[in-house]
Amino acid sequence: MIANLNHSSAHTLSIRIYYEDTDAGGIVYHANYLKFAERGRTEYLRSLGYDHQQVMAEYKLILVVRHIEIDYRAPARLDDLLEVRTETIACGNTSIGMKQQVYKGEKLLAELKVTVVAVTPEGKAVRLPPHLRQIFGSHKPAE
Amino acid sequence: MIANLNHSSAHTLSIRIYYEDTDAGGIVYHANYLKFAERGRTEYLRSLGYDHQQVMAEYKLILVVRHIEIDYRAPARLDDLLEVRTETIACGNTSIGMKQQVYKGEKLLAELKVTVVAVTPEGKAVRLPPHLRQIFGSHKPAE
Amino acid sequence: MIANLNHSSAHTLSIRIYYEDTDAGGIVYHANYLKFAERGRTEYLRSLGYDHQQVMAEYKLILVVRHIEIDYRAPARLDDLLEVRTETIACGNTSIGMKQQVYKGEKLLAELKVTVVAVTPEGKAVRLPPHLRQIFGSHKPAE
Amino acid sequence: MIANLNHSSAHTLSIRIYYEDTDAGGIVYHANYLKFAERGRTEYLRSLGYDHQQVMAEYKLILVVRHIEIDYRAPARLDDLLEVRTETIACGNTSIGMKQQVYKGEKLLAELKVTVVAVTPEGKAVRLPPHLRQIFGSHKPAE
Repeated sequence: MIANLNHSSAHTLSIRIYYEDTDAGGIVYHANYLKFAERGRTEYLRSLGYDHQQVMAEYKLILVVRHIEIDYRAPARLDDLLEVRTETIACGNTSIGMKQQVYKGEKLLAELKVTVVAVTPEGKAVRLPPHLRQIFGSHKPAE
Repeated sequence: MIANLNHSSAHTLSIRIYYEDTDAGGIVYHANYLKFAERGRTEYLRSLGYDHQQVMAEYKLILVVRHIEIDYRAPARLDDLLEVRTETIACGNTSIGMKQQVYKGEKLLAELKVTVVAVTPEGKAVRLPPHLRQIFGSHKPAE
Repeated sequence: MIANLNHSSAHTLSIRIYYEDTDAGGIVYHANYLKFAERGRTEYLRSLGYDHQQVMAEYKLILVVRHIEIDYRAPARLDDLLEVRTETIACGNTSIGMKQQVYKGEKLLAELKVTVVAVTPEGKAVRLPPHLRQIFGSHKPAE
Repeated sequence: MIANLNHSSAHTLSIRIYYEDTDAGGIVYHANYLKFAERGRTEYLRSLGYDHQQVMAEYKLILVVRHIEIDYRAPARLDDLLEVRTETIACGNTSIGMKQQVYKGEKLLAELKVTVVAVTPEGKAVRLPPHLRQIFGSHKPAE
């Protein structure tokens, strides 16, 4: 049994938009939202007490993305200050499901559902270590 | 009524993997598949007789991504030669649905469903110009 | 005549290294130091009271890079926390010279000399507006 | 003694500009020229009979960039087709010097001088293997 916390369990990261993030359409290039989301998941992991190097050192595994669904609602532009909100919505034996939202102030710009799995350095999918499952699962919002 | 072609209507683009595409996990960084897919859609558009500058000049609009679903099956690595296959699977008044697959030889590495819409330079969503609808629709595989 | 300040005029920006920044060599991809430097110059500009949108709105010009010299001393890795130090070293009628250094703790990883010029949206090089010259020049270290 | 060839020894690679390469200034983002140059060096290496994986497998070393000087002459834009010309201009015991030029048709857009060195996977600088020196050196233009 895994304890659930309330919705305030979402992790938030601020991201400033630079020229590197934009494209000739004058807006943030669509693929870069996946970079922002990955920064958000990395800082969320760090807030849970881990970084990627430690996950590798301790468990000999890498967390990789298996599936992403992203909905683009409104564009971001140069100099904007965005906010990435990340929360765990599912945590099973082999995968973690996360919901991520990119906001500019009160406005939702993009929403992602991301499935992360654990693989060995050789790329073989493996079960999530119980401790990792527990820390992600314990931050899942209450149903 | 829009004529349908057979499956051979898929457009194919070869993509070489360079250091810029990889990450410290030793594999292609997951967000970069969205870049490869966008290169594939751009060359598909070019094969239909258009480039982005022409779409802007002729219709005063930009084709932007509204939704992406991507499934990662297997990783790609440095020096790999990949193939991006792009085809239209739906073409409505306001959006074009495409299926894109990234292969290494016979092996499917990633599969995307992408919804593209037309917006004005100010970002307002508009109906697709009939001629663009027709050329995309006429390359949709038969059901 | 332009007043000079002392060395403490250097602007500092912290940058966290994510998977997106690294390559299959296990280190930060060399081209990404130019992105970090551009983030540093943008925040330096912001600290002087301007952002890119304001420079465009007020002067109808864009600051673009004309020349870069970069020396790579030591690599950065995933999860590293770097510091970009930016200072003006020359400020003429048509160009600004900056020195930028990327540190990990006390260790110098990379050093850049960057020449920035002002261009119109059509790409024509123009003289720097006196006010911009003044704010950059006033932050040049004393000789 | 190293044989010299004539100027036709320059290697040429075509590069198409996509949205991912551009920024909100409407032109190719300046850092991306370093990516184009690295693609050019990689294909030049391949034309000499090597890829990065083979250099690692055969010599247990990685070729990394030690110094770059880049001069930006004119911008590139969306849909442009560029050409990267790469040639060896110096080849010593520990480093290879290359000159790289990015053209759009007859127009020179950017010029780079790049110094490449060999390092072990742990990052230690080492002498270039004689065979690698020879193949790069033999493609140096005659003085």
